[in-house]
Amino acid sequence: MDSIARLLGPASVAVIGASGDARKTAGRPIAFLRKHGFAGRLYPVNPRYEEIDGLQCYPSIAALPEVPDVAIILLGPERANQAVAELAAQGCPAAIVLAGGYGETGASGALRQEELKAARGSMRILGPNTIGLVNLTDRVTLSASGALDMDQLLAGRVAVVSQSGGILGALLSRGVAAGIGFSKLISTSNEVDLDVADFVDHLADDPATSVIALYLEGLRDSAKFSRAARKAHAAGKPIVVYKVGRSEAGAHAANSHTGAMAGSDDLYSAYFRQLGVIRADTFADLLDIPFALASGRCMKGRRVAILTSTGGAGTLIADNLGMSGFETPAPGPQTAQALRNLDIGDQAVLDRNPIDLTLAGLQPELMRKAIGILLESDDYDAVVSVVGSSGVAQPHLMADAIRDSLMHSAKPVLAYISPHAPMAAQRINGSGGVAFNAPESCASALKALMLCGQMSDPDVSAHRPAAFNDALDALPSGLLDESRSKRLYASFGMPVTREQVVETAERAVQAATQLGGEVVLKVLSERIAHKSEVGGVALRLSAQDIGARLEQMRDEVEKHVGFTPQTFLVQEMVSGGQELILGLLRDPQLGPALLLGMGGVTAELFQDTTLRLLPVSEAQAREMLGELKTFPLLDGFRGMPRADIDAAARCIAAFSDMAMQLGERLLEAEINPLLVRPEGEGVIALDGLTVLA
Amino acid sequence: MDSIARLLGPASVAVIGASGDARKTAGRPIAFLRKHGFAGRLYPVNPRYEEIDGLQCYPSIAALPEVPDVAIILLGPERANQAVAELAAQGCPAAIVLAGGYGETGASGALRQEELKAARGSMRILGPNTIGLVNLTDRVTLSASGALDMDQLLAGRVAVVSQSGGILGALLSRGVAAGIGFSKLISTSNEVDLDVADFVDHLADDPATSVIALYLEGLRDSAKFSRAARKAHAAGKPIVVYKVGRSEAGAHAANSHTGAMAGSDDLYSAYFRQLGVIRADTFADLLDIPFALASGRCMKGRRVAILTSTGGAGTLIADNLGMSGFETPAPGPQTAQALRNLDIGDQAVLDRNPIDLTLAGLQPELMRKAIGILLESDDYDAVVSVVGSSGVAQPHLMADAIRDSLMHSAKPVLAYISPHAPMAAQRINGSGGVAFNAPESCASALKALMLCGQMSDPDVSAHRPAAFNDALDALPSGLLDESRSKRLYASFGMPVTREQVVETAERAVQAATQLGGEVVLKVLSERIAHKSEVGGVALRLSAQDIGARLEQMRDEVEKHVGFTPQTFLVQEMVSGGQELILGLLRDPQLGPALLLGMGGVTAELFQDTTLRLLPVSEAQAREMLGELKTFPLLDGFRGMPRADIDAAARCIAAFSDMAMQLGERLLEAEINPLLVRPEGEGVIALDGLTVLA
Repeated sequence: MDSIARLLGPASVAVIGASGDARKTAGRPIAFLRKHGFAGRLYPVNPRYEEIDGLQCYPSIAALPEVPDVAIILLGPERANQAVAELAAQGCPAAIVLAGGYGETGASGALRQEELKAARGSMRILGPNTIGLVNLTDRVTLSASGALDMDQLLAGRVAVVSQSGGILGALLSRGVAAGIGFSKLISTSNEVDLDVADFVDHLADDPATSVIALYLEGLRDSAKFSRAARKAHAAGKPIVVYKVGRSEAGAHAANSHTGAMAGSDDLYSAYFRQLGVIRADTFADLLDIPFALASGRCMKGRRVAILTSTGGAGTLIADNLGMSGFETPAPGPQTAQALRNLDIGDQAVLDRNPIDLTLAGLQPELMRKAIGILLESDDYDAVVSVVGSSGVAQPHLMADAIRDSLMHSAKPVLAYISPHAPMAAQRINGSGGVAFNAPESCASALKALMLCGQMSDPDVSAHRPAAFNDALDALPSGLLDESRSKRLYASFGMPVTREQVVETAERAVQAATQLGGEVVLKVLSERIAHKSEVGGVALRLSAQDIGARLEQMRDEVEKHVGFTPQTFLVQEMVSGGQELILGLLRDPQLGPALLLGMGGVTAELFQDTTLRLLPVSEAQAREMLGELKTFPLLDGFRGMPRADIDAAARCIAAFSDMAMQLGERLLEAEINPLLVRPEGEGVIALDGLTVLA
Repeated sequence: MDSIARLLGPASVAVIGASGDARKTAGRPIAFLRKHGFAGRLYPVNPRYEEIDGLQCYPSIAALPEVPDVAIILLGPERANQAVAELAAQGCPAAIVLAGGYGETGASGALRQEELKAARGSMRILGPNTIGLVNLTDRVTLSASGALDMDQLLAGRVAVVSQSGGILGALLSRGVAAGIGFSKLISTSNEVDLDVADFVDHLADDPATSVIALYLEGLRDSAKFSRAARKAHAAGKPIVVYKVGRSEAGAHAANSHTGAMAGSDDLYSAYFRQLGVIRADTFADLLDIPFALASGRCMKGRRVAILTSTGGAGTLIADNLGMSGFETPAPGPQTAQALRNLDIGDQAVLDRNPIDLTLAGLQPELMRKAIGILLESDDYDAVVSVVGSSGVAQPHLMADAIRDSLMHSAKPVLAYISPHAPMAAQRINGSGGVAFNAPESCASALKALMLCGQMSDPDVSAHRPAAFNDALDALPSGLLDESRSKRLYASFGMPVTREQVVETAERAVQAATQLGGEVVLKVLSERIAHKSEVGGVALRLSAQDIGARLEQMRDEVEKHVGFTPQTFLVQEMVSGGQELILGLLRDPQLGPALLLGMGGVTAELFQDTTLRLLPVSEAQAREMLGELKTFPLLDGFRGMPRADIDAAARCIAAFSDMAMQLGERLLEAEINPLLVRPEGEGVIALDGLTVLA
């Protein structure tokens, strides 16, 4: 058994700094362990007591009769570090450090956390600054959370890992109130050692857990988290995450435009999507979605039957489902006939949806039969039953009907509780159903059940080998000018404009003549990132007028930048097609990502962009293109010519290849614009910007 | 006293069809009236009883000792109609009809509802199919709602009017559970007579009500509702509405493009915004926002202090507030010093926001002082206090601190309850505070408090008189072709292209010569609404080539439409500027509205549009332009020339004038595109389409 398994399911627990006063924080863990039925050996440690609540109390760690599987340390931070060192020396596999005053409180706390790290040796640590963990499968409560004051804890199939102890307590108490059971709840908090990813990895193997809910503030090691998430996915266990930090602005890249077009949180959304992790939009969803998923029922289509005995609430549900893209069709003739055969009375509305049983909905037998008919019907993929005011006085009515119906169908059955009727919700949740108090939760839970119905392998694309490019090592550091950037891109197979670097008006005329047709003149300098802002771009020139224009540009740019530019770029003039922007983003936690956006000012005002963590394959690039809201502009919208989407996808994948090969050396890279020409005519990078380390 | 006032506050009530069994629906009203302390005279009517619960029971309406102020009718629909006729004949001011089986159940029910309408004479009716009303100010419960089973009803300052009886019961029971008090709750349901607007009008005058919450399924008379809403607004009483029907598609106009660009629900949003009515996004907001507004506290700026004793929940609130555009700045030096002077201990975090008191937050005196410091500080416009797990066992801790702080400041103080702690929420809500269980509710409530801080007069623009246009009567019915449409628009002062109608190639050459420069040739027929789809538009023609082009167009159009077009339009070629679309929408309930959208395919893919009910003044037109997400395209974005926004606003107002003058005759009208040229150069309608009745 590994250390994490022992931490979660110890045969013996030492409580270091235990208090005999169960009202104090240091008194709670022993009280909770005994109250909730811990079956293992329990050793209080505190020189001030002989015994606590009938248990022999030991004066020191050294005096313990055995090395415990887990120590829960209730001492202040200085003494906690000392206890950790003693326990580590004895070979204790794992300890939980509740004390605060570490990394969360500034410089001296951070130092203390480093000392803790050193003290632990190879012992595993949960915390510090944690509220601990609760294993409801095995009745192990290694925590001081006030939420454990309650008498009944409900074991269930949802595991919670939270980077905040307070949030863990909130989820536990909200869950218990709603009748939602948990397998394990773990607060990792400061994560001096064990982090969220360690527990996701462990829970992927835990037979008692079927869904994992995460409360995240940030990820310390995203590669490790990715591995753990893929393992959970492979084990068929959905992960639902609520992550704060949504309102933070992203770190902006200094030179390229890419950084301004996506925040760091957008990158997290892309990352979770790539891993097949469901992101909860509201805090309530962090409980509601996992609990719905834990029912093990998936939704195979979008058609929902709403069964109600109170018209208004049925309409409310239908409206919310409609806004989330679900359909609520009327029952087909067979289903309607089966409902009519129930002989419900003439006020009931059976040929529409919501299906309104009116007062007949208060007869359990009729309700059971009606749910059964709807579950059996080919007209529907799920049923939402509305609990009206009768649910306050008769909480069992709907619960019993749902429980009996579930045996005969694999389709989801959700209940919406219209009044305040906590007993009805508890009863439904406790007997195999899934009940919600918010109409919005019904919609978001059904959306998750649709996803799990379509659950496919997450993005596991490994880095595809590409021909090694010897020239890369020779690249200089700093800003590469447009010409060098494009030569780099071209070496990875990205098509770029034909162009020549010139220093004089005469050479410009020669270059224009050789290129033929209309040309573009640009200033070229690794000191100038934004050429057009300093008068350094001129379009539609001919060999006749380019010479004079170069002299004029040299003067104008000099006025803006204060030095005389030495080199210019003469470039074929290409037009006709849609413009894209392609750029590299780097997140300190998540690593490099690719941003794809539609070009043009209007799309830019709407920030029509999409993101993927690298690497990005051609197939993924095609998905990204399809995610742009203005994708129809590439796809023949309103008789426009269809653009060369294949070539665009190839170019995006080549850009990804380049970024993977250059690795840490590539600080910024951007093609803006990438012109996508009509089908069969390819793409072409009109401009490029690169910064190398 | 008018009939509605008597309905809500009767001195005498007859209960027609009362049952002696309080468990039955027909037994509830008397039981509830007595339980909740109705102080007036109460007359059960039922020939089967001598007395009910000690009250004399009368065999018939005729036998009543006086004409009651209100009758609540518990009979089935047929007998209810008969009772209504009898009561009306006696001069009873108002009756409540609970029975269903009317308009909500199909054709025969609709007939029955018509009969009820006839039977009522001048007596006012609430219902049918209603759950009744509850007046908590005066302890009048004229309802059979199971929600009244509860022992304690809390009077408060929020009134609820609901078009669904079940939803009214849900709101009442949820409110009571949260410790939220109400003044009146009224379910209008089928609205055979009294409707939502009648009660809004009445509540605007009700001294016990300071906020009105509405649950709407639709409006029967929007003009009446507008008047009532303006009256409430003038009385300083905010209205918060939750309206279903959000997922319904709008009715599409047959010929113009306008209808496809906005749904009927978008029009309701525009309507509510124009009236200063706040629209609740979630069902929970329908209680949370009014209750926050009922505190009478407004927010003057965006800066929020978050005070917590549990780090995670503080972060959760900060993140949600940030996403809603609020700021959570760190305390300034003075505020931070005042907090440090509280001598809280070295684990507290006082120089950041959330301000984390850690365990010191459990000392009521410290919490009170900390809230006081933050309310007094110029650094903040509101305070959100987080209740952690201590709130479960000690529900009074935060409630008392908040209550004491409120006296010294007019700023809002909200509480976020992190665990499941209903007692803490009740206690806070019951003692002047405002507590929420969802972080999202804190954000939406503060947003509403910002709005009320900025509450200005709603749109009360009356129809501005414009010069009467004699020619209007002479206009034909049906589709007006482009030329006639533009002449109509021009007669209202909207600039249109110079153009000539021609029938032959020779006349086209003459017209092109007279117009000068490049011209446009279009087919002209009241049978062709979409010219370019049938090959009926050619751009950039000269006098030299227009003749041949006309012959070619005649052939091509004929192939598409099956008849030979007789007339063509030769039009000056205008370019340079931004394109807008301007159209008329008609909603059966809300009336005519103006849709403004940005032109161009990209903006169209984003449906970048905004709506106003007519009439629209120049000032409102300018607001509409500013509401377009792509407004920067008109406003000098990225060095583009600033467009003639004044001229655009004038043209929009003129379009509104035209629609007001043509009234019901104008079925469809659309300018697409309206070219907005650079500042000082005006606007010009390049195409137009009109359908007249």
